[in-house]
Amino acid sequence: MESLNRLIGPDVGALLEERRYDQLRSALIEIEPADVADLIAVLDDEQAAVTFRLLPRDLAADVFTYFDAEQQEALIGRIGTERVAILINEMEPDDRTALLEELPAQVTNRLIALLTPAERSITQTILNYPEESIGRLMTPDYVRVRRNQTIAEAMHHIRRWGRDAETVNVIYVVDDDGMLIDDLKIRQFLLADPDQTVDSIMDESFVALRATDDREEAVRQIERYDRVALPVVDSRGILVGIVTADDVADVAEEEATEDIQKMGGMEALHAPYLESAFSSMVRKRAGWLSVLFVGQMLTATAMGIFEGEIEKAVVLALFLPLIISSGGNAGSQATSLVIRAMAVGEVEPRDWGQVLRRELAAGLSLGLLLGAIGLLRVVLWPGSAEAYGSHYFLLALTLAVSTLGVVTFGTFAGSMLPFLLRRVGLDPAAASAPFVATLVDVTGVLIYFTTAAFLLRGTML
Amino acid sequence: MESLNRLIGPDVGALLEERRYDQLRSALIEIEPADVADLIAVLDDEQAAVTFRLLPRDLAADVFTYFDAEQQEALIGRIGTERVAILINEMEPDDRTALLEELPAQVTNRLIALLTPAERSITQTILNYPEESIGRLMTPDYVRVRRNQTIAEAMHHIRRWGRDAETVNVIYVVDDDGMLIDDLKIRQFLLADPDQTVDSIMDESFVALRATDDREEAVRQIERYDRVALPVVDSRGILVGIVTADDVADVAEEEATEDIQKMGGMEALHAPYLESAFSSMVRKRAGWLSVLFVGQMLTATAMGIFEGEIEKAVVLALFLPLIISSGGNAGSQATSLVIRAMAVGEVEPRDWGQVLRRELAAGLSLGLLLGAIGLLRVVLWPGSAEAYGSHYFLLALTLAVSTLGVVTFGTFAGSMLPFLLRRVGLDPAAASAPFVATLVDVTGVLIYFTTAAFLLRGTML
Repeated sequence: MESLNRLIGPDVGALLEERRYDQLRSALIEIEPADVADLIAVLDDEQAAVTFRLLPRDLAADVFTYFDAEQQEALIGRIGTERVAILINEMEPDDRTALLEELPAQVTNRLIALLTPAERSITQTILNYPEESIGRLMTPDYVRVRRNQTIAEAMHHIRRWGRDAETVNVIYVVDDDGMLIDDLKIRQFLLADPDQTVDSIMDESFVALRATDDREEAVRQIERYDRVALPVVDSRGILVGIVTADDVADVAEEEATEDIQKMGGMEALHAPYLESAFSSMVRKRAGWLSVLFVGQMLTATAMGIFEGEIEKAVVLALFLPLIISSGGNAGSQATSLVIRAMAVGEVEPRDWGQVLRRELAAGLSLGLLLGAIGLLRVVLWPGSAEAYGSHYFLLALTLAVSTLGVVTFGTFAGSMLPFLLRRVGLDPAAASAPFVATLVDVTGVLIYFTTAAFLLRGTML
Repeated sequence: MESLNRLIGPDVGALLEERRYDQLRSALIEIEPADVADLIAVLDDEQAAVTFRLLPRDLAADVFTYFDAEQQEALIGRIGTERVAILINEMEPDDRTALLEELPAQVTNRLIALLTPAERSITQTILNYPEESIGRLMTPDYVRVRRNQTIAEAMHHIRRWGRDAETVNVIYVVDDDGMLIDDLKIRQFLLADPDQTVDSIMDESFVALRATDDREEAVRQIERYDRVALPVVDSRGILVGIVTADDVADVAEEEATEDIQKMGGMEALHAPYLESAFSSMVRKRAGWLSVLFVGQMLTATAMGIFEGEIEKAVVLALFLPLIISSGGNAGSQATSLVIRAMAVGEVEPRDWGQVLRRELAAGLSLGLLLGAIGLLRVVLWPGSAEAYGSHYFLLALTLAVSTLGVVTFGTFAGSMLPFLLRRVGLDPAAASAPFVATLVDVTGVLIYFTTAAFLLRGTML
C-alpha cells in the first residue's frame, strides 16, 4: 500500500505559482520524506530548489537521501553553500558516504570541507574502508553503555543518545577500551531493577561483523541470525558501528541485480535500467557480446572439419541447431542453479565434488529424456523414410546419442564453470547462460559430427 | 565474522557419550540459537532429540526455527506430544506459520490442535492469508498504545508487552476500534513528559502495508521508506501485525533466487540446491528443457525449406550456429535486464514504449558492431578466397546483414517478451535466456537464409 498521504498530496506546482509557500511547507511536513522526494523530483530545477529550501532542516536531510545522484548534484549546485553545509551535516553517516561516493571527486572534496570536524572524521573513517565492505555500509549512530554502569545510568544515557540512533532495540555494551563485550535488548533494560549494574544482565553472547569484510557477509549474517541490526567491530574488536537490516535488504537486492545482469551475459549496470546512460549500457553489453561472437566463430571452424560429411548428407546440418542448443539450455539451467546457490552460501567451493556427481546424474537423466524425444521425432514423423532417406533409423540414433552427449556435457560445463571461475579469483556469475551456451555449441558440433561419422559410416556417409 | 562462540563451541558428541548433560546444557545456553541449530544438525536423529530436550523451552523454540523442514519433522516425531505443544506455542507466529506450511497437512492439523486457543487463533489468522502474501509474513508481536493514554501509561504498557515484541523501536497508535492512526518512535516516548498524552506527540503521518498484498510489496516499501519494520493493516485499516526488515531481506533473497532459476530456464526449486530432492529437481528442469527441445525442432523444419540452398552452398551451413547464437545472446541480455528491472520496480508495464525504443536502438548498435566483426572475419581471413570461393565478399555481406537482423530481432524479442508475459498474467521471469534463444534461433534461420537467397542469387545460389 502506498502512503495514504501521497495519494492526497498537495498540488506543489499550483502552490508554488501562487507563492503560497507557508501552505506548501505545512503540507510537505505532513508527508513521508520518500514521498516528498517524489513530489519534488517531477519539478524543474528552479522549482525544486525553491521547494527544497522550504523544508525544515532535518526533513530536508531525509528527503535529500531519496534523490538519485544526478538530482542531488543539481540541488547542491543551486541551494547555496551554507544550506549545503547544514544539509550534509544533518544526513545519516551511511547516506552521506553513499552521496560522496557518487559525486565527482572535486565536488566530494568541497563537501567534506563543509563538514564539522566531528562529522568529517566519521565520514573519512567510513570512506577509508574498501568499496563494497561492511565499513561503507555501517552507521555510527548506535547507543553503547559500559558494563559497570547501573541500569538507571544506562537508561539516562540511552534517553540522551537514543535520539539520533538508528535503532534502540539493541544496546551495545563495551569495556573501557571500547571493545564490544555484549549486546542487550532494550527490553532487558526496561524490565531490570534500576539499581542493578549492566554487568548483572549480561550474557556475553553476541554476534559481530568485521568492518573490512565484504558487505555480502552482512547479508548472510543478518539473515542467519534474524536480527534487525548487527554490531560492527574493527580488527581489534573495538565497536565502530552497526549495520541495520533495511540497509542490508538494499545490498541483497543490488547484489542480486548485479548477478542477474552478469548471468544474462553482460557487465553489471550499477544503475536503474531506465536511468543508465544509453552509451554506457551499450558498452557494457557490447564487450561480452563481441567476445562471445568471436568465440562462437569456432563453431564455423569446427564445422569446416566436417564439410565433406555435410556435403554427403545435408540432412545432418538441418538438425545441428537443435542438438547444440539443447546443450546450451541444459548448461544454462546448471550454471544458474550453481551461481545462485554459491551467492547465497548454500554451496561452498569445497562442495564441488558433490555438485559434480549430482549434475552428472541430472545431465544423463535429462539427456536420455531429450534423446528419446529426438529419436521419436525422426522415427514417428510422417514420411520420415522419404524425407531422410532409407537410413533414417540410424540418423535418429545419431540424434539421440549426440543429444545425450551434448546435454550431459552442457550440464557438466555449466555446473563446474562457476567453481573454476571462483577458484581463479573471478566472479562465478560471469559463467553466464550465453557464455556456457557458446562453450557448449563448439563442443556440441564436435560431439554431433563425430557421433555421425561413427554411426553413419558406410551408410549415409 | 562468525559467532566467536561457535568457533569455540562444545564437543557435543563427546559430552553426550559421557552423559555430561548438565555441562552440555550450560554450554549450549551460552551460544546463539542459529549456532546451536548447526551443532545439533550434524548429530544423528537420536542424539539430536536428546540434545534438543536439554534446551530450556524458549531457547528450544528459537533453535527449532533454524532447522530445515525435514529436520523439524524428524524432531517432532521424536520428542513427544507434550514437548511439541510447548515448543510450537513458544515459537514466533511467523516462524510457526512457516513450519506449518512446510509440513504434510496431516501433521499440520495435529500440531494446530496442540496450540492454546489464543495461539491457534493467531496461527489460523495468518494461515488464511493467500500464499506469498504479506499476511503470511507478518507477526502479531508488536506494541500498540491508544491515543488518549498518557506517556506514563503508555510506557507502562510498553514495558509490560515489549517483552515479547519483535521490535520496540516503533510503537503503534490505534483508536478505539483498533484502527492504525500513527506510528511513533520509542525515543519520542523516552523524551516526552510523562504527563503528556500520546495524542500530543502524534503527527498522524505513517506508512502501512495491506495484509492481502503480495510480499514483494513489503520488500519494495521497506526499502523505499528505509524502515526496520512496517505495520500491516486489513482492508478496514485495522492494525493486524508488523513486518520486520530481517524477514523482508529473506523474502527479497528468495524471490531473487526464484527469478534466477526461472531465468535459467527451469521452474523455481523452492529449496536450497543441495537439499532439494534429486527427482524433484530433475523434474523441474525436464519440463522446460523438453518444451524448448520440441520448440527448437522448428529450426530443422525451417532449415528444411532451404535444403536446396544448403546443398548448393554448404558453406552457408558452417556459419549458421554463429549467426543464430548471436541473436540468442543479445536476447538473453535484453530479457535479463528487463525482467530484473521489472522485479525491483524500476520498470512498470506502462514503460514498454520507452523500453522498446531504447532496446531497438541498442539492438541496432550491437548488431552493427557484430556484423562488422563478422564481415572482417571472412574478408580478412587468410585464404578466404580459396576457402569460400570467388564470391566471398558477397558471403561476408550476407553474414553481416543477417547478424544485424538477428541481433536486432533478438534484442527486440528479449525485451518485449517479459512485458507480453506480464500482460497475459504470467511471470515475466519465464522469459528465460533459453526460451528467448530458442525463439530467436527459429527466426534466425529464416532471416539468415532469406538474406542469403536475396544477396547470393545468381552467384553462389
